[in-house]
Amino acid sequence: MTPETHEWAQSLDTLHDQAWKRLARGVADRRAPCRHPTLATVDAEGTPQARTVVLRAADPKAARLRVYTDRHADKVDEVQLTPKATVHVWDNVAHLQLRLIASVEVLIGPAVEPVWAQLSDHARQCYGFSPASGSAIDDGLAYDKQPSADSLAVLELTLQHMEVLHLGHRHRRARFSRLDGWSGQWVTP
Amino acid sequence: MTPETHEWAQSLDTLHDQAWKRLARGVADRRAPCRHPTLATVDAEGTPQARTVVLRAADPKAARLRVYTDRHADKVDEVQLTPKATVHVWDNVAHLQLRLIASVEVLIGPAVEPVWAQLSDHARQCYGFSPASGSAIDDGLAYDKQPSADSLAVLELTLQHMEVLHLGHRHRRARFSRLDGWSGQWVTP
Repeated sequence: MTPETHEWAQSLDTLHDQAWKRLARGVADRRAPCRHPTLATVDAEGTPQARTVVLRAADPKAARLRVYTDRHADKVDEVQLTPKATVHVWDNVAHLQLRLIASVEVLIGPAVEPVWAQLSDHARQCYGFSPASGSAIDDGLAYDKQPSADSLAVLELTLQHMEVLHLGHRHRRARFSRLDGWSGQWVTP
Repeated sequence: MTPETHEWAQSLDTLHDQAWKRLARGVADRRAPCRHPTLATVDAEGTPQARTVVLRAADPKAARLRVYTDRHADKVDEVQLTPKATVHVWDNVAHLQLRLIASVEVLIGPAVEPVWAQLSDHARQCYGFSPASGSAIDDGLAYDKQPSADSLAVLELTLQHMEVLHLGHRHRRARFSRLDGWSGQWVTP
């Protein structure tokens, strides 16, 4: 049952390149594994938190990713206090785990109006609830949707480090860092 | 494309029960979504970290989970410093997201000998590398496996809170806590 080693996993350059190809596919294709990463953050008590998000943009040149969220979601408070996150994907097609350590900027208000303008009516339904996201309610459906641009936040994730693990006949693991221009370093799995 | 609401998502009791059923299935079935959760921790710099793990045990009565790891893995150092973790699963069959916030105890040495004794030769290959897991190496395959019971660590995760999100025609989200005997509280998605 051990997967074969992909050719692109055999050099640091091609492994790094493949990670970005997979991320780009996640933005373009709803069914790609990178479409739904897990975003890990740290809350005010120093507890790690994690949830599924939708990958909305991936820019390999700037090494930046984008995720949208309701601005009342806990994750927005968390990254405003501790502006760091890890984006995690297990890509079971490529046999590839991506661990992307990023600094985070929260965009709200006028900065997200161009994003709001491009969202479909259907997509807008995710941003804006009454009472606000996370409020205690008496019943599971005791809330209303109130879509509004004011409720949209964009998380801009600037990658600082990438850790890539390829599961093959023998595993290969590499670390890449912004500090050295993403040249990469093999490490023991 | 909106999934139907499952009947078990309509009350707090049955939703909580279903979460544990899914976790049990993850332990028993290699193909179940709960087999491979994401484990989020916090490193020494306060940065959130995340990686895929294999769920090895789920005890609903004690609300405890178990995960095995190489004791030289970064996550062991991380939870020894900050003994908290979140276990995250997106179950795309049940349309269920589980966010399980836990305190963590690391078991090593004599405490894990019974676990080691039950592992197959194949499974033991995951524990023990030379140079140690995470060491810089010259080539992707410049490491050897040296399986040994000394290299096995068991993470015992005692759940403190569970947050369960069901994506249905309308989403339902609930928080459960050890403090109130897991009775549960609906919250706005």
